[in-house]
Amino acid sequence: MNNKILIFGSLALDSVETPFGKRKNILGGSATHAALSASYFATPIIVSVIGEDFPDEHTAFLKKNKINIKNVEIKKGKTFAWEAKYGDNPNECEVLATYVNVLQGYSPSLLPEHQDIKYVFLANNSPSSQIDLLNQLKATELIVWDTMTFWIDKYNDQILKILPRVDIALFNDLEARHFSRETNLMKAGKKILSKGVKKGVIIKKGEHGAVLFTRSFTMHLPAYPLEEVKDPTGAGDSFAGGLIGFLAKTGEVNDKSLKKAMAYGTITASLTVEEFGADRFKKLKKEDIQKRFLELKKLTGF
Amino acid sequence: MNNKILIFGSLALDSVETPFGKRKNILGGSATHAALSASYFATPIIVSVIGEDFPDEHTAFLKKNKINIKNVEIKKGKTFAWEAKYGDNPNECEVLATYVNVLQGYSPSLLPEHQDIKYVFLANNSPSSQIDLLNQLKATELIVWDTMTFWIDKYNDQILKILPRVDIALFNDLEARHFSRETNLMKAGKKILSKGVKKGVIIKKGEHGAVLFTRSFTMHLPAYPLEEVKDPTGAGDSFAGGLIGFLAKTGEVNDKSLKKAMAYGTITASLTVEEFGADRFKKLKKEDIQKRFLELKKLTGF
Repeated sequence: MNNKILIFGSLALDSVETPFGKRKNILGGSATHAALSASYFATPIIVSVIGEDFPDEHTAFLKKNKINIKNVEIKKGKTFAWEAKYGDNPNECEVLATYVNVLQGYSPSLLPEHQDIKYVFLANNSPSSQIDLLNQLKATELIVWDTMTFWIDKYNDQILKILPRVDIALFNDLEARHFSRETNLMKAGKKILSKGVKKGVIIKKGEHGAVLFTRSFTMHLPAYPLEEVKDPTGAGDSFAGGLIGFLAKTGEVNDKSLKKAMAYGTITASLTVEEFGADRFKKLKKEDIQKRFLELKKLTGF
Repeated sequence: MNNKILIFGSLALDSVETPFGKRKNILGGSATHAALSASYFATPIIVSVIGEDFPDEHTAFLKKNKINIKNVEIKKGKTFAWEAKYGDNPNECEVLATYVNVLQGYSPSLLPEHQDIKYVFLANNSPSSQIDLLNQLKATELIVWDTMTFWIDKYNDQILKILPRVDIALFNDLEARHFSRETNLMKAGKKILSKGVKKGVIIKKGEHGAVLFTRSFTMHLPAYPLEEVKDPTGAGDSFAGGLIGFLAKTGEVNDKSLKKAMAYGTITASLTVEEFGADRFKKLKKEDIQKRFLELKKLTGF
């Protein structure tokens, strides 16, 4: 069964302010954004934890999008929450507060029925919990992995142990520069690849697009151009969701499918940021993704 | 005759410091970089002025590359000179000094034999001297035009008069934002286009590539990736030279040729910055450009 995707990440309540407005306690989290994007290609199964305060309407929304939440634990206490502010530059985010809440001490426990899922996205999480999850997987074909500067600084050793166990490693440009200690992104990508990542390293550059480094080719893709970015939150996770979603649907990971997956990731990311939180997915159709995919092809071809 | 290109810009003596070294009084100037890049496609004719100190070896180098300098005046005094320093970010340039010298009060005077040239690049120059030159042209098919923030601030009115007279207007991202008063580059491009530019507006984003806005389509192209940028000076002018060079060689300006011209501009710019000043052109072959053009196609296709 290739059309299931295991997504290990956060379900969160986000409070966000951007030049386009302010929202409080909206549905957020890496697993949310990745799963919603992936749901247009395959069936996402979220592995996560929420608190007792997680609103029923959020649960209903995820279920309505055919996202499986059987592996989401409900713990005593409050859901992971996050507050941030963006200015005119959507690439710059000021984190105002992070409330770890029920994520504190959470260790993922995979239901037996999910242990042989082949396509897996490990969203940004503590490296030790990512290793926990990796150790429960039995038959993977593709593991896409993400992290952030906080973990790079604190648990570099663990990250170096994770890299050779994953197929595709995601970094944003700042993280890639920080982790590789290279200013030039071409050098950074190659250096991270040399740490043993199985297939490829993707460096996400926000409004400037993304680059994929593999041992046989490199791919540069501009972002899908938007005149208005209402809320940049979740762009990276949506990118990952569209990418792994397309690959899981296709059931083949090769040069050609990876390139197309980069484009689909670019598209789902561009859609996410058009509305606050996960709002864009309330009325998004499959055709909208396909239309934008073809536009991106036209925009970049010569 | 389509295969001649008139290039109105500066011949300069540049002193540059980058993380890769330091050079003093090397051959520089907008016309130099544009003409060298264009020379691989067509015959560039430079309209400019130099001082008595302009070294013979520079003149010989330009002539060796089949650049016509009959329309370059030699005036009493010193050649235009420029000093700058770049740090790790090649997009950021600190100008240390500008010596206008013989450019002061210079007004271009076209030789009769050059007045019916069809392809024209007006490099960054005072808007009044650009208007002077425009008024001497009799049979243009394509005018590519460039400016910089200094003129945008000082002579906005004149620039607004120039725009409807040119086919393609070039801006870098900072200039485009400044001129349009739009932070978002998509909005900036459209707004500048609405000022009456005949065919298209190109926003150059340095290492992040370039965007072309026309009334019928938009094109996004990443930069050709380089691990080392030895000297970013002249990238924009080389871009313009490759762009107009290809169009002059093709003799046709349409959607298809414009897209390809964007790619050729991207390539000549990437070559220029690989060495200090104009050094890369000392051993550059036509095949090198073609090879990189095909690589860029591969890098961006999906």
